[in-house]
Amino acid sequence: VIFYLLDLLGVAVFAVSGALAAGRAGLDLLGVVVIAAFTAVGGGTVRDLLLNRHPIFWIADSRYLAVIFLASLLTVAYMRVLPMPQNAFLVVDALGLALFALSGAEIAETVNASAVIVVLMGTMTGVAGGVLRDILTGVVPLVLRRDIYASAATAGIVLYLLLQAAGVKHSVAFGLGMACVVTIRLLAILWNWQLPTFHFT
Amino acid sequence: VIFYLLDLLGVAVFAVSGALAAGRAGLDLLGVVVIAAFTAVGGGTVRDLLLNRHPIFWIADSRYLAVIFLASLLTVAYMRVLPMPQNAFLVVDALGLALFALSGAEIAETVNASAVIVVLMGTMTGVAGGVLRDILTGVVPLVLRRDIYASAATAGIVLYLLLQAAGVKHSVAFGLGMACVVTIRLLAILWNWQLPTFHFT
Amino acid sequence: VIFYLLDLLGVAVFAVSGALAAGRAGLDLLGVVVIAAFTAVGGGTVRDLLLNRHPIFWIADSRYLAVIFLASLLTVAYMRVLPMPQNAFLVVDALGLALFALSGAEIAETVNASAVIVVLMGTMTGVAGGVLRDILTGVVPLVLRRDIYASAATAGIVLYLLLQAAGVKHSVAFGLGMACVVTIRLLAILWNWQLPTFHFT
Repeated sequence: VIFYLLDLLGVAVFAVSGALAAGRAGLDLLGVVVIAAFTAVGGGTVRDLLLNRHPIFWIADSRYLAVIFLASLLTVAYMRVLPMPQNAFLVVDALGLALFALSGAEIAETVNASAVIVVLMGTMTGVAGGVLRDILTGVVPLVLRRDIYASAATAGIVLYLLLQAAGVKHSVAFGLGMACVVTIRLLAILWNWQLPTFHFT
Repeated sequence: VIFYLLDLLGVAVFAVSGALAAGRAGLDLLGVVVIAAFTAVGGGTVRDLLLNRHPIFWIADSRYLAVIFLASLLTVAYMRVLPMPQNAFLVVDALGLALFALSGAEIAETVNASAVIVVLMGTMTGVAGGVLRDILTGVVPLVLRRDIYASAATAGIVLYLLLQAAGVKHSVAFGLGMACVVTIRLLAILWNWQLPTFHFT
Repeated sequence: VIFYLLDLLGVAVFAVSGALAAGRAGLDLLGVVVIAAFTAVGGGTVRDLLLNRHPIFWIADSRYLAVIFLASLLTVAYMRVLPMPQNAFLVVDALGLALFALSGAEIAETVNASAVIVVLMGTMTGVAGGVLRDILTGVVPLVLRRDIYASAATAGIVLYLLLQAAGVKHSVAFGLGMACVVTIRLLAILWNWQLPTFHFT
């Protein structure tokens, strides 16, 4: 049940991130909610479609949509009166990324996908929502060009798989994988780590 | 059979809207047909994928594609010789939106989705085609930032569900739901209604 | 087995094309691999989702992902030291397009789709990866506005279907269909063929 609560928290965090992006693009109230929803459940939806898991998780359980709706409205209300708590948000976003990546990997494991697919599905669950958010608000997806973001998710999932292969208990491996994602992500922000970029002409 | 004809009319209307957007972006003849097709069947395709309904409606019935093809060519031919009949088009577009929203909701009901999902699927069927059209022609989806558009669809579907819950006959509820969408949409255009927008920084 | 090797070659070619586009957009190493993957397997993935074929081909066979990974890294390494061999690349890209279009059509035939759907699925398998690549790197999909590209794929598939209907052996029809796509595509580049474009206002 703790994972379910964490999952809802992850959805709420990504919904806030989507609502903020929609605000930056000057969308109306409906647009804010829609972008928040895409950001929060986009990754998991693509994962479920690719793995042929039906019904899609947010169709089966309406609480996800309720959380997104509430989180969007609270974000709009909050931004009317207070400035954005930049640092707090980045920490919570890192937590959401870690959670989505690991739970996405876990779900891919349940359908007996190969290790490569597990890593890929987990990373995608973590970042696809943000990519959709960026496409819908008209910017080149940031996740593909800045910071260590998807790479942090990949690293954490690989650690999780290695620990499981080494016989570590599942919940411990899950927790350490998440810690790995959060740590790499926050250090990357703190020290401005970047993967090398390429400019062809 | 009247609903089937209305459905084909809705497809034709959205195909015209897609062809016009493609023309504005300066695409070639093939691009015009492709964008028209995405606009016309995009919403229903995403709905069918999410609800796991196979085969997808336009794979099962080729008449949809024939209608799109014809509508695109007629649009191109028409635009060569005459100016766009702005007002007539807006009315027909409102009718198409109403039809897609209500029929999308009805389909979600047949798979026993909850009321929230029915509203969501119906609204999405109505507007997703337009969102795809805008993404493919390189603009921030208009539906998310202007006018009462998706909101009109949502309102009509809610009315339809309430009337059904109150024991009103299905076809009457369907018709009144559609009328509600068309009315709100046209009044919104006429009086320039907008939902409040947000600009965060 | 020759078709399987050709298929992997097609994946490699489109991965290179995606990696080059990612380089042009200035993405980092991860972004290069991600865009390469979308370009290489995007068309086939959408085809499999629409036709309800599970598991998706690259989930079932990890070699596709390995090829994409290798092709991306080799592209990046190559571009560091040498200029792009523009002409060689265009020829290989035409081959990849031909292969994806014909194999996409063949797969649609195996699920008893109608001829229109076969043509559409084949064309889409050939071009959807490039469309995703363009959306993700922030440009209006080139395939929709320039050159004879998707049209070449469509023409080759139609020829393939006509030859089969005329009783020609399957492998011969497949080969002639591919030759048709490659020929049209290369002549279009050589002589700068374009479909007429439309500009409405």
